[in-house]
Amino acid sequence: MKIALNGFGTVGKAFAQILIDKAQTLQKEFDLDIQIAAINTRTRGTLFNPEGLDLSKVLAQSNFTGMADATQTAFKDIITHDVIDVVLDVAPTDIQTGQPGLDICRQALSAGKDVVVASKGALAVAFNELQEKAQQTRSHLLYEGSVMAGTPAIRLAKQDLAGCTITEARGILNGTTNYILTQMETGMTYADALQQAQELGYAEPDPTGDVEGWDAAAKILILSAALFGLQLKLSDLDVTGITQITPEDIAAAQAAGERYKLVASVTAQGGSVKPIRLPLIDPLANVGGATNAITYRTDLMGDVTLIGAGAGPRQTGFALLSDLIDIHRRG
Amino acid sequence: MKIALNGFGTVGKAFAQILIDKAQTLQKEFDLDIQIAAINTRTRGTLFNPEGLDLSKVLAQSNFTGMADATQTAFKDIITHDVIDVVLDVAPTDIQTGQPGLDICRQALSAGKDVVVASKGALAVAFNELQEKAQQTRSHLLYEGSVMAGTPAIRLAKQDLAGCTITEARGILNGTTNYILTQMETGMTYADALQQAQELGYAEPDPTGDVEGWDAAAKILILSAALFGLQLKLSDLDVTGITQITPEDIAAAQAAGERYKLVASVTAQGGSVKPIRLPLIDPLANVGGATNAITYRTDLMGDVTLIGAGAGPRQTGFALLSDLIDIHRRG
Repeated sequence: MKIALNGFGTVGKAFAQILIDKAQTLQKEFDLDIQIAAINTRTRGTLFNPEGLDLSKVLAQSNFTGMADATQTAFKDIITHDVIDVVLDVAPTDIQTGQPGLDICRQALSAGKDVVVASKGALAVAFNELQEKAQQTRSHLLYEGSVMAGTPAIRLAKQDLAGCTITEARGILNGTTNYILTQMETGMTYADALQQAQELGYAEPDPTGDVEGWDAAAKILILSAALFGLQLKLSDLDVTGITQITPEDIAAAQAAGERYKLVASVTAQGGSVKPIRLPLIDPLANVGGATNAITYRTDLMGDVTLIGAGAGPRQTGFALLSDLIDIHRRG
Repeated sequence: MKIALNGFGTVGKAFAQILIDKAQTLQKEFDLDIQIAAINTRTRGTLFNPEGLDLSKVLAQSNFTGMADATQTAFKDIITHDVIDVVLDVAPTDIQTGQPGLDICRQALSAGKDVVVASKGALAVAFNELQEKAQQTRSHLLYEGSVMAGTPAIRLAKQDLAGCTITEARGILNGTTNYILTQMETGMTYADALQQAQELGYAEPDPTGDVEGWDAAAKILILSAALFGLQLKLSDLDVTGITQITPEDIAAAQAAGERYKLVASVTAQGGSVKPIRLPLIDPLANVGGATNAITYRTDLMGDVTLIGAGAGPRQTGFALLSDLIDIHRRG
C-alpha cells in the first residue's frame, strides 16, 4: 500500500514513527506493508519516491531540500500518479473554506484514490460532495481522525452500531475546554485555567477556536453529515463557548450535584455546542481533563458511550493507521 | 442469508422481532435479507423450512407442535443442510462443560457454516479449538453477544483498535452485581439489594452465578482467549464475588472518595474478578445500576472505555444482528 501524505507536522511525524515501530506487526497480523511514497509540506518542500521513502532518514531531517527524493513536481500531480493507492491529509485546514485539504481530497477521489483525512475542514465543508465523489469512483473516504483522534467514535457509529438507528450523538469533543472546566472545579478562574492549558500545550496562543466552541462545532458538522446525511454550515449551529463561565457558575453546579461540560450534540434536526450542567449520573459528566467522550442514543441499545483521547499526535497517527487497516480489510 | 437458530427464549424471540422490524432497513442499507430457516428448542420442538419461517406466526405460538414447519429431523442434521449459511446459538450453556452449545458450534464449523454465539459456555471452554476449526473450514466465528450483549466490546477490541497492542482489559461485566453495589451505596444491606434485584428480574432466583463472580469470570475466559490467545480455565482465575461486602465497607469507600466495583480484568499473564475500590476519576467508578463498561489499555491510544447495556433480550438480539451484518460485509 503506497501512501501520499499531505502535512508533516507533529501528526505526520508521529504517523511515520508508528509505521516504523509497527512494520513487523502489520506484516504479520494483517499482511499489510504500508510505504509512504510522497510527503508534501507547506514550507519544507516535497519528497517523492515511487518505491517508498526511507522514513528514518526523513524523520532525521528538518528540511527536505537537498535530499535525494526532493522533487519540484506539484503534489497534485503526485497524488494522481499510478503508484499511489491512498492519499492522507493531515495538514491544518480552514474550517470555513475546507482548504487546502478540500482540493486535495477532490483531486484524489476524482482519480479513484482512497482518501484518509484527519483534519476537519474539508469534511465539515463538503462531506456529502466528497462521499458522492468517492461512490462515483468506487474509492474509500475514511475520516476516523477527524473526531476524537484515534478513539474510534466514527467506526463505532458507522460499523459497530450498524443495524441500530442512531437518533442523537452528544459528546465532549474538545479537550482544551474540558481541561479548563475541570481545572475551574478546583476554584481556578477561567483566565488562570486557560493560561495553564496554554502552558501545557493544550490550548493554542490564540485559543478562540477551542474556547468559543468552533472546533467542537466543526466536528458536529462532520457527525451531522456522517450520521444523518445532513450537510450543515457553521452558521446553522447554535454555538456558545465557555468564556462567560464564572467560578460562581461552576460552584453553583457543584452545589446542585452537577458539572458544567461543553456539550456538542446533533440530531437529524440540527446541532449545537454549548455549556450544559450535567447530572453526575451522566457518563459525560465524569469525563475529566483533556479526555473526550461521545454518547450515541440508539433504538435497540439505548445509550452507548465511548471515552478516550481526543487529540495528540500519536493518537491521531493511530487514527490514520486504523483507517488504512480498514481499507486493507475491505480489499 | 439463511439462519439456523438454537434457542428460542427471550433472546431468540427478541432477535426474531428485530428481524421483522428491521427487514426493510436491512434490505435498503445493506442489501441483506436474513431468513430464519430453522429454530430448535429444548422443550417445544424444532421448526425447519428451507424457504424461511414466517416469524410473525412463530412468535404467536407458544408451542411448535402441530405447526406446518414442525419437524422430527435432529437439529444437528439441519445445521449441516446445504440451505443453512449461519448457525446462531443463543441457548443457555454450562460454563463448566460449554454444552449443549459447544457440540453445535463444532458441528456447524466442521461443516463450514458461519457461527454466531451469544452464550458464554462454548467459548469460555473451547475458544481456541473453535477458532482453529473456523480457520480450517474458512468459516466465521463471531461472538459479540457473549460479552456486554450488543455493546460492541469485542468489535472495539478486535477491529476498531486493530493496530494498537492491548495490554489489559478491565471492566464491569456483570450488571446484577453492579446494580446491587449501586443500591448498597444508598445504605441498603446486601440482602435487601439482592432481593430488590431479584424482584426487578436483574438477579435469578439462585443468584450464585452472578454474585459469586462466575458470570464475569466466564467473560474473562473469552476475553483472555480473544485478546491474548490464552485459553484459561475458571480454576486459573482469582475469583471473589460481592457477598461478603458490608454496608460498612461501602461507607468506608465513599468516605475515601472511592466506590466498590466488581472488577473483571485480564492481561497476558492471567485474569481475576474481585471487588475493588476505585477512585472516582476512574471511568469504571461512575458506571451505575445494571450498566456495564470495559476499559482497554493500549500502547498507542492509552485507555479507551466503552459503556453500555450488558444484558437484555433486545440488546443481545442486536449483538446477533451486528455479527450477521459483519459476516455479510466480509462477503
